[in-house]
Amino acid sequence: MSEQNLHFDSPHKRLPDIADMAEAIRRGDRIKLGQAITLTESTRADHQIQARELINYCLPHSGKSIRIGVTGSPGVGKSTFIEALGSYLVNQNKKVAVLAIDPTSQISKGSILGDKTRMEKLSNHPLAFVRPSPAGESLGGVARKTREAIILCETAGYEVIFVETVGVGQSETAVHYMVDIFLLLLLPGAGDELQGIKRGIVEMADIIIVNKADGERLNLAKQARQAYANALHFLLPKESGWVPKFMTCSALYETGIAETWALIKSFNAFSKENLFFEKNRKQQAGYWFYQSLREGLERSFFENEIIKQQLKQAEAEVLEQKRSPFEAAQALLDFFLKSVK
Amino acid sequence: MSEQNLHFDSPHKRLPDIADMAEAIRRGDRIKLGQAITLTESTRADHQIQARELINYCLPHSGKSIRIGVTGSPGVGKSTFIEALGSYLVNQNKKVAVLAIDPTSQISKGSILGDKTRMEKLSNHPLAFVRPSPAGESLGGVARKTREAIILCETAGYEVIFVETVGVGQSETAVHYMVDIFLLLLLPGAGDELQGIKRGIVEMADIIIVNKADGERLNLAKQARQAYANALHFLLPKESGWVPKFMTCSALYETGIAETWALIKSFNAFSKENLFFEKNRKQQAGYWFYQSLREGLERSFFENEIIKQQLKQAEAEVLEQKRSPFEAAQALLDFFLKSVK
Repeated sequence: MSEQNLHFDSPHKRLPDIADMAEAIRRGDRIKLGQAITLTESTRADHQIQARELINYCLPHSGKSIRIGVTGSPGVGKSTFIEALGSYLVNQNKKVAVLAIDPTSQISKGSILGDKTRMEKLSNHPLAFVRPSPAGESLGGVARKTREAIILCETAGYEVIFVETVGVGQSETAVHYMVDIFLLLLLPGAGDELQGIKRGIVEMADIIIVNKADGERLNLAKQARQAYANALHFLLPKESGWVPKFMTCSALYETGIAETWALIKSFNAFSKENLFFEKNRKQQAGYWFYQSLREGLERSFFENEIIKQQLKQAEAEVLEQKRSPFEAAQALLDFFLKSVK
Repeated sequence: MSEQNLHFDSPHKRLPDIADMAEAIRRGDRIKLGQAITLTESTRADHQIQARELINYCLPHSGKSIRIGVTGSPGVGKSTFIEALGSYLVNQNKKVAVLAIDPTSQISKGSILGDKTRMEKLSNHPLAFVRPSPAGESLGGVARKTREAIILCETAGYEVIFVETVGVGQSETAVHYMVDIFLLLLLPGAGDELQGIKRGIVEMADIIIVNKADGERLNLAKQARQAYANALHFLLPKESGWVPKFMTCSALYETGIAETWALIKSFNAFSKENLFFEKNRKQQAGYWFYQSLREGLERSFFENEIIKQQLKQAEAEVLEQKRSPFEAAQALLDFFLKSVK
């Protein structure tokens, strides 16, 4: 339906561009891929229409990668880890893309992947594509952009896609709902720092990796792995049927990297075998559909200029207990549903 | 605004009824109070308009009670506890109302307070008003009805209002957002059954009471109280500044009841002194306002007949990964916002 409208609106201009862009992406043109991601990040209305069309073009060519979520506290070495594992993979002739979700980057300016020198080796490799976290105020917006970037990268033939996130707010949950496998990186230090990591995040992890297992920390890291394994053996069985695995690695010295990849491949085979892989991707699509509906609905209401004014007044009356919150809400809703066209 | 409309719509019929009803409630007419609560529970559109008007009438006369939430696992003795404490209060000439939130009652038919014989002594007392859990499919609906029943009971001069809930789903959170103080009842049994109670619920509690501290269980109950106090000393400080208290009681033998009331009065004085009481009621009004807006918005969308049909089709396309969830959601939203009038 929306595609037909687009045909009608601009038979000579937009469509050839988008089709050309999609074809260039399919041929693996990195510059066009970068431009396409920028298009999906744009807030301009005409860009958004083009971006939706492009995504629908690419959708049938997407889905063939393994999507790997990577999380862990700041300083745990996520970027070094991804660079080590990514380099290992491009050396095996695999195409690797790295994306990030970091809703805090607008505030702190300390964006993950924002500093391009952090993955210098990987980002200069012809088989790798590294993209900083998109700008965006809301997690929902950032999540949409990242999920669309995944589709575009897959269309361009990237076989392994990393999505890096830092443990702030709900960003792990968002990443969890867009990847096939979820890695949690921890530091050697036997249990202490697990306190800082929310239980829900630990429960999402398919592989828990104690990083920085090198030099003097090697034994400490091994002890930590064992302590985590002991502490977490009571975790509920996962829907995938996969039992979480515990590892040590040194991203810096590149030890444990091949083993991590072997485990990821083993998870991949396991979840494809028992059909969880496909089921999970379907559930994720459903999740984002309903999530987008709810967010869009709220945005259309709370960002409506007339509602904004009335809301302020109504809220004040409610807080002063001059008006029932239910009655005030209903009156505002009635007004909104009558006024939108 | 809505009041003016009502004046205009029905100058001779509705308003006198509602004004009469409100006056009767203020005089303490229990039959009219019961009818008024039934009116707020009705799904008929004209009843709902009348109910809103009635609530706005009563609002200035409400708010003067202490609202007490009571939760605990099934079998812990919530009803017996409320009957014992309620009887203690009516014997001191206090007016006591008992309400309930039980969103499961529609399914299990095992409604709390549904069996009227369970609080026979209290419900027959002229100073007490006992009302079963309202029917309603959604927690939001049940919560609104209960909160409006609180306002009506306060208008009728009830000074102590109990809201009983059973630990299912989000009902504790709902009750927590409508009471001044939250009591958690536990059984003697030293820590074991705390496993079954969600941490969030324990964190809401202002007073944790080990019930059934009688006969052979007396020592066990005292040990349990100590065990809970030890296990829970690490709880974060509450926004109210109140440090949760631990007690034992026997609702059956009516021991510890006077002490519980003394603690409730002490909390009441403390939270009024440090102004948390008023602040909390304001925050709660704001919570229900935004909660109602969000729920009403979603209901208007997801229960729209045309949307229902389109949603099914769109969801299927999304799950088959033929369509981007974001694009499909946006198309549905665009359609909805254009079509509603």
